[in-house]
Amino acid sequence: MKFTNHNVRISPKASIGSGVRIGDNTVIYDNVIIGDNSTICNDCIIGEPVSEYYSDENYIQPTTVIGANALVRSHTMIYAGCTIGSHFETGHHAIIREQCTIGNHCIIGTFSDVQGHVTMGNYSRLHSSVHLAKGSVLGNFVFIYPFTVLTNDRFPPSLETKAPTIGDYTQICVSAVILPGVHIGANCLIGANATVSDDVEDFSLMLGSPAKRKGDVRELKAEDGTPLYPWTARFDRGMPWTNAI
Amino acid sequence: MKFTNHNVRISPKASIGSGVRIGDNTVIYDNVIIGDNSTICNDCIIGEPVSEYYSDENYIQPTTVIGANALVRSHTMIYAGCTIGSHFETGHHAIIREQCTIGNHCIIGTFSDVQGHVTMGNYSRLHSSVHLAKGSVLGNFVFIYPFTVLTNDRFPPSLETKAPTIGDYTQICVSAVILPGVHIGANCLIGANATVSDDVEDFSLMLGSPAKRKGDVRELKAEDGTPLYPWTARFDRGMPWTNAI
Amino acid sequence: MKFTNHNVRISPKASIGSGVRIGDNTVIYDNVIIGDNSTICNDCIIGEPVSEYYSDENYIQPTTVIGANALVRSHTMIYAGCTIGSHFETGHHAIIREQCTIGNHCIIGTFSDVQGHVTMGNYSRLHSSVHLAKGSVLGNFVFIYPFTVLTNDRFPPSLETKAPTIGDYTQICVSAVILPGVHIGANCLIGANATVSDDVEDFSLMLGSPAKRKGDVRELKAEDGTPLYPWTARFDRGMPWTNAI
Repeated sequence: MKFTNHNVRISPKASIGSGVRIGDNTVIYDNVIIGDNSTICNDCIIGEPVSEYYSDENYIQPTTVIGANALVRSHTMIYAGCTIGSHFETGHHAIIREQCTIGNHCIIGTFSDVQGHVTMGNYSRLHSSVHLAKGSVLGNFVFIYPFTVLTNDRFPPSLETKAPTIGDYTQICVSAVILPGVHIGANCLIGANATVSDDVEDFSLMLGSPAKRKGDVRELKAEDGTPLYPWTARFDRGMPWTNAI
Repeated sequence: MKFTNHNVRISPKASIGSGVRIGDNTVIYDNVIIGDNSTICNDCIIGEPVSEYYSDENYIQPTTVIGANALVRSHTMIYAGCTIGSHFETGHHAIIREQCTIGNHCIIGTFSDVQGHVTMGNYSRLHSSVHLAKGSVLGNFVFIYPFTVLTNDRFPPSLETKAPTIGDYTQICVSAVILPGVHIGANCLIGANATVSDDVEDFSLMLGSPAKRKGDVRELKAEDGTPLYPWTARFDRGMPWTNAI
Repeated sequence: MKFTNHNVRISPKASIGSGVRIGDNTVIYDNVIIGDNSTICNDCIIGEPVSEYYSDENYIQPTTVIGANALVRSHTMIYAGCTIGSHFETGHHAIIREQCTIGNHCIIGTFSDVQGHVTMGNYSRLHSSVHLAKGSVLGNFVFIYPFTVLTNDRFPPSLETKAPTIGDYTQICVSAVILPGVHIGANCLIGANATVSDDVEDFSLMLGSPAKRKGDVRELKAEDGTPLYPWTARFDRGMPWTNAI
């Protein structure tokens, strides 16, 4: 029961690369471009129209690009107007709203909800159930874990939103809250269930609610005394410095 | 690739208003009534049968009503027995269980999970990934943000549940927990990651876990000194006092 | 509009018991075995192939077994390689990754995300939006509530993961975080929004972030003075000691 093109709907205005596989019941809208050798699994919607589609008779569908070698898992929805690099991967039921710019080798996990106008660098990853507010900016190699939320509205409800920015290599553990407009530097470790309310300098270990700086991550050692951070020395799965073949 | 009625299933016992659009792969069960000019997007299930459907041969499907001018986004599921007003809107994958009563101009966001027998007034909004326990009561103009949960069981597991009640205009920020039976008054602001364990009087600012009263929201000022709350003076998007056309 | 076999895809290599009902648009992959009188609702995927499927030409689909009398609700996805007992029940959009072993009478709620290689005993229940890290171990009669997460990586990212283990009868309330490798004993009550960082002895009441032991659950009394825990004396819905017919 491999890809059988059962109930697949592909707009004639979409551009599908060579070697692309499309799962059952998937819909590809107008002006979607999918790179070579990508796999779009069952029940996905690629190029979901933005709100004006439902009210504007002259609606023009913004282009959505997904690079080569993607693996987009079932029930993922990617809106119109997104630009996504190569080797992209999603979990199931991932949602990526309009006008997002996502680099190469990124992962958006199951049930993660990326609001519009989000920027992600290369090799960044959202685990399951991460919520990124509209306008969030993630650098490269940023990993965020389940039930963590980046917010953009300090005194809700308002229209004066400002989303967080997260520096390269930073890790944000589960169930953390990053408050509006906060800048977290590079190479930080944000603890589980932390609430980060102020800017964070590079290499900070942040714990608690509200989060306090508990030290420099470079002081964290494994049992054998080797430093744990920066983590690039000890983790390479899927990273550009990997030795895996 | 507009609404093509591809793989749409509509019960002959459903009542569909004029100008209604139904997306691909959507199922409308018996005794569903959909108001004029509503849009039900792809892959929705409206009138999902309740548990007895699977075991009771004499099952009678309760009526579900969705008012006029709704926009129900893809993969939303609304159970049998719900009554929903006009101008209703959902995100993707929203779930509304049986016997909910929802007013006009309400929004239920992506991945939000409204357990049964919930009451919402008019103009109330759940952002993404909000969980409302069975029996929760929300007033009018109540906004709740991602990963916040209203609970109803103080000593689980039990069958003696009591859900929270939330007053008009109150805002509950991300990742908050509202404990069983708590009454939160009108015009309150509940902070991110707060755990609210006791009743809260009107106009309270509540922060922390367990949450403590940190002042009156009317004392919160913008940088130019204008008061931030009540928020009705500064926010009107989609509100009845809007000047938008 | 009962089960009409509309757009249902069942592999000829699947084994479907007698009296099984399959909802619209559902896909059953190779080597899936479904026990008698089970109901698989709309839009489910049972036996979702694991990653190697997409890259390995010699991929062999691991067997997935779902026991008799299951009720698997719509949009649930169960991966290849899972073994699940009888009377299994899911909410909507539940996800169960590969190589999970789940006992009899278990429930996995709406939007819950069970990563691979998880073990659950009998009569254990995940409410909505629970995230279990890969390798988590739950005993019997363990109930976990919304937005709670079990984690397995103390210094992310790493490949040296160790998931929590949870003893029989323990209840973990909403929005809690269980840190990697923690063992929670039997008959514990973990409070809402708690962060559990160390092992917990049997019968402990744990509150706060980081969680502290606040007493023995056997000291908790109802208003009439009867003890609330162990809860088996006061709750029997769906339990083997129920008197319900």
